[in-house]
Amino acid sequence: MKPVVGIIMGSDSDLPVMAKAAEMLDQLQVPYECTIVSAHRTPDRLCEYAKQAEERGIRVIIAGAGGAAHLPGMTAAMTVLPVIGVPVQTKALSGVDSLYSIVQMPPGIPVATVAINGALNAALLAAKILAVNDSELNARLKEYAGQLEDSVLGKAEKLETIHYEDYLKQM
Amino acid sequence: MKPVVGIIMGSDSDLPVMAKAAEMLDQLQVPYECTIVSAHRTPDRLCEYAKQAEERGIRVIIAGAGGAAHLPGMTAAMTVLPVIGVPVQTKALSGVDSLYSIVQMPPGIPVATVAINGALNAALLAAKILAVNDSELNARLKEYAGQLEDSVLGKAEKLETIHYEDYLKQM
Amino acid sequence: MKPVVGIIMGSDSDLPVMAKAAEMLDQLQVPYECTIVSAHRTPDRLCEYAKQAEERGIRVIIAGAGGAAHLPGMTAAMTVLPVIGVPVQTKALSGVDSLYSIVQMPPGIPVATVAINGALNAALLAAKILAVNDSELNARLKEYAGQLEDSVLGKAEKLETIHYEDYLKQM
Amino acid sequence: MKPVVGIIMGSDSDLPVMAKAAEMLDQLQVPYECTIVSAHRTPDRLCEYAKQAEERGIRVIIAGAGGAAHLPGMTAAMTVLPVIGVPVQTKALSGVDSLYSIVQMPPGIPVATVAINGALNAALLAAKILAVNDSELNARLKEYAGQLEDSVLGKAEKLETIHYEDYLKQM
Amino acid sequence: MKPVVGIIMGSDSDLPVMAKAAEMLDQLQVPYECTIVSAHRTPDRLCEYAKQAEERGIRVIIAGAGGAAHLPGMTAAMTVLPVIGVPVQTKALSGVDSLYSIVQMPPGIPVATVAINGALNAALLAAKILAVNDSELNARLKEYAGQLEDSVLGKAEKLETIHYEDYLKQM
Amino acid sequence: MKPVVGIIMGSDSDLPVMAKAAEMLDQLQVPYECTIVSAHRTPDRLCEYAKQAEERGIRVIIAGAGGAAHLPGMTAAMTVLPVIGVPVQTKALSGVDSLYSIVQMPPGIPVATVAINGALNAALLAAKILAVNDSELNARLKEYAGQLEDSVLGKAEKLETIHYEDYLKQM
Amino acid sequence: MKPVVGIIMGSDSDLPVMAKAAEMLDQLQVPYECTIVSAHRTPDRLCEYAKQAEERGIRVIIAGAGGAAHLPGMTAAMTVLPVIGVPVQTKALSGVDSLYSIVQMPPGIPVATVAINGALNAALLAAKILAVNDSELNARLKEYAGQLEDSVLGKAEKLETIHYEDYLKQM
Amino acid sequence: MKPVVGIIMGSDSDLPVMAKAAEMLDQLQVPYECTIVSAHRTPDRLCEYAKQAEERGIRVIIAGAGGAAHLPGMTAAMTVLPVIGVPVQTKALSGVDSLYSIVQMPPGIPVATVAINGALNAALLAAKILAVNDSELNARLKEYAGQLEDSVLGKAEKLETIHYEDYLKQM
Repeated sequence: MKPVVGIIMGSDSDLPVMAKAAEMLDQLQVPYECTIVSAHRTPDRLCEYAKQAEERGIRVIIAGAGGAAHLPGMTAAMTVLPVIGVPVQTKALSGVDSLYSIVQMPPGIPVATVAINGALNAALLAAKILAVNDSELNARLKEYAGQLEDSVLGKAEKLETIHYEDYLKQM
Repeated sequence: MKPVVGIIMGSDSDLPVMAKAAEMLDQLQVPYECTIVSAHRTPDRLCEYAKQAEERGIRVIIAGAGGAAHLPGMTAAMTVLPVIGVPVQTKALSGVDSLYSIVQMPPGIPVATVAINGALNAALLAAKILAVNDSELNARLKEYAGQLEDSVLGKAEKLETIHYEDYLKQM
Repeated sequence: MKPVVGIIMGSDSDLPVMAKAAEMLDQLQVPYECTIVSAHRTPDRLCEYAKQAEERGIRVIIAGAGGAAHLPGMTAAMTVLPVIGVPVQTKALSGVDSLYSIVQMPPGIPVATVAINGALNAALLAAKILAVNDSELNARLKEYAGQLEDSVLGKAEKLETIHYEDYLKQM
Repeated sequence: MKPVVGIIMGSDSDLPVMAKAAEMLDQLQVPYECTIVSAHRTPDRLCEYAKQAEERGIRVIIAGAGGAAHLPGMTAAMTVLPVIGVPVQTKALSGVDSLYSIVQMPPGIPVATVAINGALNAALLAAKILAVNDSELNARLKEYAGQLEDSVLGKAEKLETIHYEDYLKQM
Repeated sequence: MKPVVGIIMGSDSDLPVMAKAAEMLDQLQVPYECTIVSAHRTPDRLCEYAKQAEERGIRVIIAGAGGAAHLPGMTAAMTVLPVIGVPVQTKALSGVDSLYSIVQMPPGIPVATVAINGALNAALLAAKILAVNDSELNARLKEYAGQLEDSVLGKAEKLETIHYEDYLKQM
Repeated sequence: MKPVVGIIMGSDSDLPVMAKAAEMLDQLQVPYECTIVSAHRTPDRLCEYAKQAEERGIRVIIAGAGGAAHLPGMTAAMTVLPVIGVPVQTKALSGVDSLYSIVQMPPGIPVATVAINGALNAALLAAKILAVNDSELNARLKEYAGQLEDSVLGKAEKLETIHYEDYLKQM
Repeated sequence: MKPVVGIIMGSDSDLPVMAKAAEMLDQLQVPYECTIVSAHRTPDRLCEYAKQAEERGIRVIIAGAGGAAHLPGMTAAMTVLPVIGVPVQTKALSGVDSLYSIVQMPPGIPVATVAINGALNAALLAAKILAVNDSELNARLKEYAGQLEDSVLGKAEKLETIHYEDYLKQM
Repeated sequence: MKPVVGIIMGSDSDLPVMAKAAEMLDQLQVPYECTIVSAHRTPDRLCEYAKQAEERGIRVIIAGAGGAAHLPGMTAAMTVLPVIGVPVQTKALSGVDSLYSIVQMPPGIPVATVAINGALNAALLAAKILAVNDSELNARLKEYAGQLEDSVLGKAEKLETIHYEDYLKQM
C-alpha cells in the first residue's frame, strides 16, 4: 500500500527511538515510509522532501530530531501537512534542548510535539489524525485503547491478588 | 455550521490566551465550539465532554490549561479524537509546569502539544488535521501561509529600504 | 484488618518505588491496599476508585506517577480524602516533569506532594494524618522518630571514634 | 474556639501569600492561629513552637517560607504532627528554590508540599486531614467542592451562550 | 561600501535587539546589510539568502531569532560563511529556548553563539573575524577595547573618590 | 581606619546591589574599600587588584558580578585571601548564570558564594571571617543576631495580637 | 591538636564526598573533627552542636548535605562562626536541590556555599579563613597554590611535547 | 607549518573532548597548537598566552572548559583574536554551568560559543573564520560539507532499501 505517513529523522542515530513509530504504525496497519532527512547536513533534501510530500500522497509527517532540532519545524514551514515532532533525548541536556527547539514554534507554523523519545505516541497521533476520516482505523485505535486498558486491569488484578513483593520478584 | 473543533480550557482565566485559537478558526472558516471544562473542579463534566465529543461531531479537540495541566491528557485518555494541548503560561514557573504536564504523556495516549501560549498554532494544527480530507480548507491554509510569507517579504523590503532607526521609530 | 490507606500507582513500573510505601505502612502497622490505577489507560477505573474510596473505608490515598503525572491530581479531584502524591523519577527529565505535574495543582484541589521517589515519606505522612486521631499510631510514629535519631547518633559516635577512612571502608 | 491548625511563616513578607490559608480556614470554620516563626532568625522559637504545638492542641501545621526555605522541614523534624509546606515565590528563582528546599526532604521526615504560593490549598489540605475524623468538616469540604464545580459550570454556560469576545470584555 | 556582514533576523520584532549589532558595526566602520529572513515563514528566501550570501560578497552572517530559533542553524547549513547566532529573549522561557535551539548544533554545522540578546557582541565577533585579515579593523577593535577599559577605570576612580551613596544618586 | 574588606564589582550597574554590603559593613564598623574591577574590560586591573590586595592589608574580598561572572573566581585564582562571590541577578536568566559561574569553581580555587543579590550576607560573612580573631566584632555580630531575632519576635507578637487583615493593611 | 574546623554532614552517605574535606585539611595540617549531625533526624543534636561549637574552640564549620539540605543554614542560624555549605549531589536533581537549599539563605544568615560536591574547596576555604590570622597556614596555602600551578604547567609541557593521541593513551 | 589556531583547555581531563577539535583541524589541514591553560590554577600563564597569541601568529583561539568555565571569556578579554568557547560537560550540571559561564559574556567581550562538548564544531568554526580569506580552505570546507551530505544520503538510501529492523541490527 502507498505510504500515507512519512517518518523522517535527522540521523540514523535516532533510529532506535524512531523505530517505535514504525512498529506502532505496523500494528495499526497504517502504511508508511521511513527515511533520513538532515535539516543541517542535507538542506536541499529537506526542502525537496517537505515540498513534495503532499503530492506524493503523504498525509502526516513524523519528524524526530535531537539537540538543536530543526527538522520538524523546517518541514512544517514547507508543507501544509500536519507535522508531528519527536524530541530525541540528548546526552548533555536530556532532550530539553530538543523539546524547546521543536515545541516553541512561532505563530503560523505549528509542530504537534510529543514527549521526549515519544515516537510511539507520534505514531498514535498520526493514526488519530488519519482516523478522522477513516472509520476502520478509528475502530483499530479504539481496539488498541481497549487493549491498553485490559493490560492495566490485568496487572492491577494480579497486584491485588498476590503480595507486592512477589509481584516485584516476577517482574 | 455544526462545530468540528472543540476548544476547551480549564478556567476562564485561560480565555485571553485561548481566544487566539477561536480567532484563527474564524479566519479559516472552521466551525468550532468554545467552553470551559475543568479537569479538577468538574471531573464529571470532563468525562462527559471527552466521551461524547466524537458522537457530537467534533473531529479535533483543543485543550488549554496551566500549572498541573491535566485537561489535555485526561481528555485524550477518553476519546479517540486527536487532542491538541496548549500549555498556558503561569506566574511562578512561566508555563514550564504546564508544558511538562501536557507533553510528557506516557506511551499510548498522545497529546499534540504546541508552544506555551501557542493557541493560534493549536488552531492552525487543528485546521491542518481537518485539511487532510478537506481540499478547500487545504487551499485556505496555503493561502494563509502565502499571506504570512508576503507579510515578512513586505517588512523585509521596508527594512532594506529605510534606515533601521527609522524602521524602529515607525514600529 | 480493613485497609485505611490506598496505595495506587499509574503503572507496575512504578512498583519498585511505591513498594517503599507499603513496607513503611507494614512497619507502622497501618492496614493498606495496593493496586494499579492508570489515569490515562484506565480513566473509568480512576473515577470509580477515587469516588468509592471513602465509602470503602479508605482514609488517605497515596498516588504515585511519573511524567505527565495526572493520577494524584485527578484522584484528588474526585474525593474529599487527603491525597498524597509521589512524583516518580523519569528517564529524560529525572522526575521534574512528575513533580511539576503533581505539585502545581490549582486552587481548590490540593495534592500533598513529597520528594521525587519519596514513597517512604508518603507512607509516613499518611500515618501522621491518621495519627491525628489515633494515639497508638501517634506513639509508634514517635518511636520511629526515636529510632531514626538513635541510628544517626550511633553512626555519629562511630565516625567520631574511628578514622573516617576506616568508616568508609566499612560502608 | 481553640486553634487546631497552626499557620506559621518565616517572615511577615510572606503574609500576603499566607493570608489565603487563613481566609480559607475561616470559610471552612476551622479554628487556627497565625504567627511568624523564622527558622534562621529565631531558631529557639522554632524549636519551642514545633515541640509544643501538639500538646497545645494543634493538629496540623501549615508552614510557608521562601528561598532556602527551612521552616517546614525543620518543624517537621520536631513534631509528629503533619506539616504542610507552602513554597513562597521568590524574586530571582520564582520559588523553585523554595519548592526544592521544602519538597526534597530525606526519608523519615515528610513535608506535605503544595504549589508555589499555594497557601489556599494548604488550608484545604489541612481541612481534609482534620476531616478524616470530623464528619461535619467533611460535609463542608464536599459543599465547597460543589461550589467550585457550580462556579465553573456557570462560567462554562456563559461562555457557551455569549460570544467569547463579549466574555473577554466582561472579565 | 559593499556590505561584508549580513544581519538577518526572523521577525521585525527582533529589531530592537538586533539594532545593537548594526550600531556597533557602524561604530567600527564595517559595512553591513540588514534585513528580515524568516526560516519558518519564508523558507525559500532563507535558502536563497544563505546560498547567495557568499557570492554577493558577504563574509560573516549574524542571525538573530527567538523561541524555536532555526534561522542561524539553517543558514549555517547552507553556506560556508561563519554564522553568528543571537538568541533573542522570549516571553515565557526568557530565551533559554532560543539559546538551546541555536547553540546545540550537531557535529558538522557550527553556529557561533553569543549571549541572550547579545547582538552587540555578535557585531564585535564579526569584526574580530574580519580583522583576522584587516589590520585597520584590528586597530579599531583594539581602540574600542581601550575605550571600554578607560570607561571602567573612570567609573572606578569616581567610585573610589566619592561615597557610594552619592554615586548611586548620580546614576 | 585602613580597609580590611575589599568590595569589588564588575560594573557600576552592580552598585545598587553591592551597596548593601557596604551598608552592612558600616553598621558593623568594619572598614572597607569599594571599587569597580571588570574581569573582562580591565583584566590588568584585575590582576593588579587581586595580587596586591593582601599586601595592602585587605583580609577578605567581596566580589559581585552578573552573567558570565568571572570576577570572583579569577580574583580567587590570584590571592590567598578568602573571596566571597555575590551572583548578581540578570535580566534573561535571573542570575542562575551568575550563580553557576561563581559557585561551580574547580578543586583548588574556592569562592564562598552567597545568594543571588545576597550582598548583605556577603558583608556578614566577611565580618564572621574577621571575627574569628576579633572578639569585639564577634560581639557586634552576636548583637546583630539578637536584633534580628527581636525584630521577628516583635512582628510575631503583633501578628498574634491583631487580625492578619489589619496587619496586612499596616504593611 | 585541638580541632578548629568542624566537619559535619547530614548522613554517613555523604561521607565519600565529605572525606575530601578531611583529606585536604590533613594535608594543610589544620586540626579538625568530623561527625554526623542530621538537621532532620537529630534536631536536638544540631542545636547542641551549633550552639556549643564556638566555646569548644571550633573556628569554622563545614556542613555538607543533600536534597532539602537544611544543615548548613540551620547551623549558621545558631552560631556566629562562619559556616561553609557543601551541596551534595543527589540522584534525581543532581544537587540543584541541595545547592538552592544551601545558597539561597535570607538576609542576616549567610552560608558560604561551594560547588556541588565541592568538599575539597570547602576545606581550602576554611583554611583561607583561618589563614587570615595564621601566617604559617597562609604560607602553606601559597605553597599549595604553587603546587597546583606546577602540576598544570607540567601537564601543559607534556601535551606540548607529545602528540595529543599519545597523551590520551597515557591517561 | 606554523600554527594559526590555538587549542587550549582548562585541564587535561578536558582532552578527550577537545581532541575532537584537533582531529578536525588535522583533517582540514589547518595547523594548530594544543596545550593546557588553567584560568584558575595558572592565571599568569593565561595572561601570557592570551596576550602573546596574536604576535605569535595565532589567528583563532579555541578554549574548552567546564564548570565555572572562565578560560574562554578571560582569554577573550586579553586578545583581539576571535575566541571560540567549548563548554565541557560536567558531572553534576551536565555542562549547563559551563555553557552559561561561557556564553553569557557582557557587552564588549564576545565568545563564540558552540554546543556542550562541541569541540569538533569549534574546529569547523575556526576553519570557517580562516576561510574568509583562504580560498583553498574554503574549498576544503565545501568538500567536507559535501561529504557530510553524501554520508546522510547514503544512509537514507540504505534505510529506504532495507527494513528498519535490519538497519538497526547492522548498526
